[in-house]
Amino acid sequence: MLFFTQCFGAVLDLIHLRFQHYKAKRVFSAAGQLVCVVNPTHSLKYAPTRCAAVQASMEQGILPPCHHHEAVHDPQLVPCTCPLFSCPWEGHLEVVVSHLRQTHRINILQGAEIVFLATDMHLPAPTDWIIMHSCLGHQFLLVLRKQEKHEGHPQFFATMMLIGTPTQANNFTYRLELNRNQRRLKWEATPRSILECVDSVISDGDCLVLNTSLAQLFSDNGSLAIGIAITTSKVHSSEAEM
Amino acid sequence: MLFFTQCFGAVLDLIHLRFQHYKAKRVFSAAGQLVCVVNPTHSLKYAPTRCAAVQASMEQGILPPCHHHEAVHDPQLVPCTCPLFSCPWEGHLEVVVSHLRQTHRINILQGAEIVFLATDMHLPAPTDWIIMHSCLGHQFLLVLRKQEKHEGHPQFFATMMLIGTPTQANNFTYRLELNRNQRRLKWEATPRSILECVDSVISDGDCLVLNTSLAQLFSDNGSLAIGIAITTSKVHSSEAEM
Repeated sequence: MLFFTQCFGAVLDLIHLRFQHYKAKRVFSAAGQLVCVVNPTHSLKYAPTRCAAVQASMEQGILPPCHHHEAVHDPQLVPCTCPLFSCPWEGHLEVVVSHLRQTHRINILQGAEIVFLATDMHLPAPTDWIIMHSCLGHQFLLVLRKQEKHEGHPQFFATMMLIGTPTQANNFTYRLELNRNQRRLKWEATPRSILECVDSVISDGDCLVLNTSLAQLFSDNGSLAIGIAITTSKVHSSEAEM
Repeated sequence: MLFFTQCFGAVLDLIHLRFQHYKAKRVFSAAGQLVCVVNPTHSLKYAPTRCAAVQASMEQGILPPCHHHEAVHDPQLVPCTCPLFSCPWEGHLEVVVSHLRQTHRINILQGAEIVFLATDMHLPAPTDWIIMHSCLGHQFLLVLRKQEKHEGHPQFFATMMLIGTPTQANNFTYRLELNRNQRRLKWEATPRSILECVDSVISDGDCLVLNTSLAQLFSDNGSLAIGIAITTSKVHSSEAEM
């Protein structure tokens, strides 16, 4: 009996995911765009160490500093860059992707243009939606975060980080696009390197920022679809064209 | 002597304006784009009635309701829609433009694409930058407002209103674009009618919203250049294309 109940639950989940996928495809109808449903990771943030640090700093109105290990003997080793956890792992930049996939279960998607469909936007802050994006021979980390910079007023922050060095990151431009209800919002910028701290990018506000009312206008039934595109930017001529 | 001092001051102002104009042209280099330097109107907001209402509501964390006259006998008459003043004027929609030009000294610019260069972004909130834009046979009002929704955290809100009815407004799409420091932010939406209240559009957050740090990234020497384009949108197919 329990087996059948679980099967029925799984089928309902599949129907729900399929429905969300269909809705996103309807909005982002360009052929060949991959739609990825991304669930929030609210509960994961409450690993004891990180949680305490986040809550203490929230009370003081500041963001926690990046998690760095006190003794990194090999300068080529980087700490775990997953923004969800205070994770003791460290390793070379080349194995960060496999660490994020295997240990933190972050999905990876292929394709120059994908649609990131963040579900359950109503969940209370702090909440993260995270995915990796493989494109143009590199891997990128997309972070959408719901956070209260001012108490009682959560905002959404979206940014893209290259899993690579700052020099490599300068060769790319990423675009995030929201498109619904006869409104369109586009953000284009050079990705930051994952060696920089995602927390500081968000606290600097140097990313796509949405207040709750705008997020509601762009979301459909509690899900927010963000179109993502990455291009190479060998010549930084974007300022010359309009 | 006083005459010469005043002349010298005027020449300095002209050189300063010319310099700002040149800078904006450099950023928005598309040929034929008109750059308009728009000065803030901080002091004008402190007309006693309006000022008291704004300050009282700021303290309560809410925005003042629209200024409406208690007795409008002719339903075809509309009150003054200038967001700067609590102005007792009322008249037909057709003469709103001339009232705004003559009484409130709001400039009007011609052209499908213009660049709005707002100066002195550092001035404390509340501050407005306002211009009228004549395009496609209609007049639009562009309002950029610096306002503190959360105490100590001013934000910038930019929106475009059609000086016409809501039905007429539905025929257009406006685009606001910021482009600097390898970052680009675009907002596209249907303009609201001037018969709706600009204060409520801004308090709803249904417009381009910038926090201070993002505004600083996009501004150059205290001035923010916003590219403006207006198009007709007979078929609302924007959601289908990406």
